[in-house]
Amino acid sequence: MFFSKLSQRTFSTSSFDMTASKTIRHLISISDLTTPEFKSLVNRAEYHKKLIKSGNKPTTWPLQGELVSLLFTKRSTRTRISSEGAAAYFGGQPIFLGKDDIQLGVNESFYDTTKVISSMTSCIFARVNSHSDIQQLCEHSSVPIINSLCDKYHPLQAICDLLTIKENFNELKGLKLAWIGDSNNVINDLSIAAMKFGINVSIATPEGIEIEQHVIDAAKLITAETGATLEIIHDAKIAAQNANILVTDTFVSMGQESEKQEKLKQFSGFQINSELAKLADKDYKFMHCLPRHSEEVSDDVFYSEHSVVFPEAENRLYAAIATLEAFVINKGQFL
Amino acid sequence: MFFSKLSQRTFSTSSFDMTASKTIRHLISISDLTTPEFKSLVNRAEYHKKLIKSGNKPTTWPLQGELVSLLFTKRSTRTRISSEGAAAYFGGQPIFLGKDDIQLGVNESFYDTTKVISSMTSCIFARVNSHSDIQQLCEHSSVPIINSLCDKYHPLQAICDLLTIKENFNELKGLKLAWIGDSNNVINDLSIAAMKFGINVSIATPEGIEIEQHVIDAAKLITAETGATLEIIHDAKIAAQNANILVTDTFVSMGQESEKQEKLKQFSGFQINSELAKLADKDYKFMHCLPRHSEEVSDDVFYSEHSVVFPEAENRLYAAIATLEAFVINKGQFL
Amino acid sequence: MFFSKLSQRTFSTSSFDMTASKTIRHLISISDLTTPEFKSLVNRAEYHKKLIKSGNKPTTWPLQGELVSLLFTKRSTRTRISSEGAAAYFGGQPIFLGKDDIQLGVNESFYDTTKVISSMTSCIFARVNSHSDIQQLCEHSSVPIINSLCDKYHPLQAICDLLTIKENFNELKGLKLAWIGDSNNVINDLSIAAMKFGINVSIATPEGIEIEQHVIDAAKLITAETGATLEIIHDAKIAAQNANILVTDTFVSMGQESEKQEKLKQFSGFQINSELAKLADKDYKFMHCLPRHSEEVSDDVFYSEHSVVFPEAENRLYAAIATLEAFVINKGQFL
Repeated sequence: MFFSKLSQRTFSTSSFDMTASKTIRHLISISDLTTPEFKSLVNRAEYHKKLIKSGNKPTTWPLQGELVSLLFTKRSTRTRISSEGAAAYFGGQPIFLGKDDIQLGVNESFYDTTKVISSMTSCIFARVNSHSDIQQLCEHSSVPIINSLCDKYHPLQAICDLLTIKENFNELKGLKLAWIGDSNNVINDLSIAAMKFGINVSIATPEGIEIEQHVIDAAKLITAETGATLEIIHDAKIAAQNANILVTDTFVSMGQESEKQEKLKQFSGFQINSELAKLADKDYKFMHCLPRHSEEVSDDVFYSEHSVVFPEAENRLYAAIATLEAFVINKGQFL
Repeated sequence: MFFSKLSQRTFSTSSFDMTASKTIRHLISISDLTTPEFKSLVNRAEYHKKLIKSGNKPTTWPLQGELVSLLFTKRSTRTRISSEGAAAYFGGQPIFLGKDDIQLGVNESFYDTTKVISSMTSCIFARVNSHSDIQQLCEHSSVPIINSLCDKYHPLQAICDLLTIKENFNELKGLKLAWIGDSNNVINDLSIAAMKFGINVSIATPEGIEIEQHVIDAAKLITAETGATLEIIHDAKIAAQNANILVTDTFVSMGQESEKQEKLKQFSGFQINSELAKLADKDYKFMHCLPRHSEEVSDDVFYSEHSVVFPEAENRLYAAIATLEAFVINKGQFL
Repeated sequence: MFFSKLSQRTFSTSSFDMTASKTIRHLISISDLTTPEFKSLVNRAEYHKKLIKSGNKPTTWPLQGELVSLLFTKRSTRTRISSEGAAAYFGGQPIFLGKDDIQLGVNESFYDTTKVISSMTSCIFARVNSHSDIQQLCEHSSVPIINSLCDKYHPLQAICDLLTIKENFNELKGLKLAWIGDSNNVINDLSIAAMKFGINVSIATPEGIEIEQHVIDAAKLITAETGATLEIIHDAKIAAQNANILVTDTFVSMGQESEKQEKLKQFSGFQINSELAKLADKDYKFMHCLPRHSEEVSDDVFYSEHSVVFPEAENRLYAAIATLEAFVINKGQFL
């Protein structure tokens, strides 16, 4: 796990347990999970979805009386609602702490704030800018940190996406998933997640945009385990060829609006539209983590019968539920 | 219902159920409710108030484990607290999404946002600027929309107001309710609501300010049903004459502060004060949905023994409870 | 109690009970509590902490179905999380109303807003700027007000601090607590709180900064009761001499950043560091209500084995729990 590489604070104190971060299981990235652990999360997400859809509810409220904190330095519709919904599902009380509520590191050290929040809550869903923030949280927190999006990883989206794929295909092993778009946090985790289920992944990014080395390294280990392959290219058409699943994400992330024109030029030819989709398998599914802009996907794909984007978004809720169950209620034990 | 007039999207997709909006009962305006349905809401609000005031609580928590979302593009004290209080009363978890949390239609289409929020929550209390926003929400949502104030209607206030009147008068049929003030969302629903209970309504607005035609049309149907009359005039004194209930609202709504001087001139003579109130029935009650400014009502009326404004504000809670019960828990069935 | 000195509104109305504020017990300052009442709060905080730490939970949820409101005109990490956590602990639903949600006295009179909020919630945790705001809230509210920080008092911190001291010392009577820093809301309540437990208090402020007279007056009464002494000086070294507990707070409060340079000059020699701490008892404990800046305490004290600042912060939760129990659930009866 990444946080294990961090330097350990060496002073000792009477007022906090420095060993905490060593025994707590955090969700940082899909790579940190064994394949059985990850599959368990997807299965439990599916289980809870079926329970809810059948009109049933849990019979116990294991988090009743406890706070589930959301520490969000960026705005987020899906992540916020799914996290609060998961807390509520287990009887917990979500507390949303946005950038105006708590300015990490501004009026108080990151360390001090983490110590305090973690001492009064059962876990922290953290949506931050930098992966180093997640690492610091994991190092100092006395409760599980759920990485709810950083610049490097987006594990909750990957759990949700594999649940969505599972719902739409009978056999996952041997499917082809094509990511046509940017190199970012979503594909970093999605590629590993898909390969854990035996899905072959083809990533097409524009020339000059490369997949990070740590993803390639992690993928090699999964190939050895499941046989699934990872192809990294710069040609959208080759990626789309015979793909069962087409996936993309926005080219212009929140806060990067100033670079928009340059980005659009760079991503020319990478829009997923009905023309490109003709290359895919005739029963292909289209996925997107939302919010969506028309640059990366045309209306005739996004709103087509191939699109599963709204069930995918809803599945964020079940992904968060499975994560809370495994990391917080069951303290890192996977069912 | 208004939303039934909306154009239907014609593409079909596998990922969402386009028939959803046809089978879900939303609360858009009082006009959409039959008289028995509306009376049921008022009665249930009264029932739950008595339960709470007697020191009792519900014995079941039908919304436990579920999110109740508040989608508010305008700030609101009463509407927010009453909606969250109603959610809590049934065990639900409120989630407040203000204009800074979700900017409807800015970073994502209104349609997409509605699909996503409704897929993860049990209902949406929507406080928006434009009635067309309510219409869009109703068209796309997979869960009930509770109109919690738009520029055209304010049904929760009308439920609350009829409960307040019911608490203060033995017999409602034949009472005279005088609205002295602006033509707005509050009186649009209140006039229909009062007439459903057999209360005669007299509306006095300044010259140049007219009641909307759809209200007059709806009122005619109620007159045929209950015999209650609607009088629309421009003379505050005639409206106040023998009135049992005097009601007004702010002349200058949030966001209109720049037009304040012009508005005050236009509304000269429309302040409800002790002089005007002398024309009313000696046991008249004064009502106001708050927040209140001294332009529209003087202190000697607002803080007088005739004023029921604070029980009225509290009744917003019971109105929201009755609404959640009917539209969400009982799925459009009225007790 | 302070609010009893307030002028009473003399008009009478039918719509609200003006006697409310006379029969409701609010938490305004530690001085308002008898010594047995205050000790009961500390004991109950300790009781609930033990319950939680043993992995147990309450068996009943007395505030389920009810709102617990937080009316905060200033940002606050610890106060917010601990209040919401206390509400959740008893099954209540916290509702956070920040300065952007409700602008007290701006669009509506303070009186009207207080009437409305208190009519729909079970209590109000109020974190305001001016003590007169707390007084107004207490005067008008129909439910208990919990002073969660004003410019004059900080009773929740004092409950928490005495719990922290109790956990770290076998015998409290005769201990010496040294406050080295500003004259502020924290020490105003902490000095009285410590003296109620028989702890001798020594306060060292810079020349020109004096402890408020009402604190000195209140302290005299406690000296007569418990024998504990209050020393007020301008020499940090004399205060630190043989102290069992060293306490300070930031010199520059939120909103006072512009005066920072002047403040720092004035507080020269008042930093608690390892040099000053040599004068204290060898087993001294260091306390601070956080957030902390390095001006008032050096790293080698703040992060030392003497520091109990993080358990102290966590104890805010148990202080809020004990307060909710006494003032809201038990309606001013102390166990």
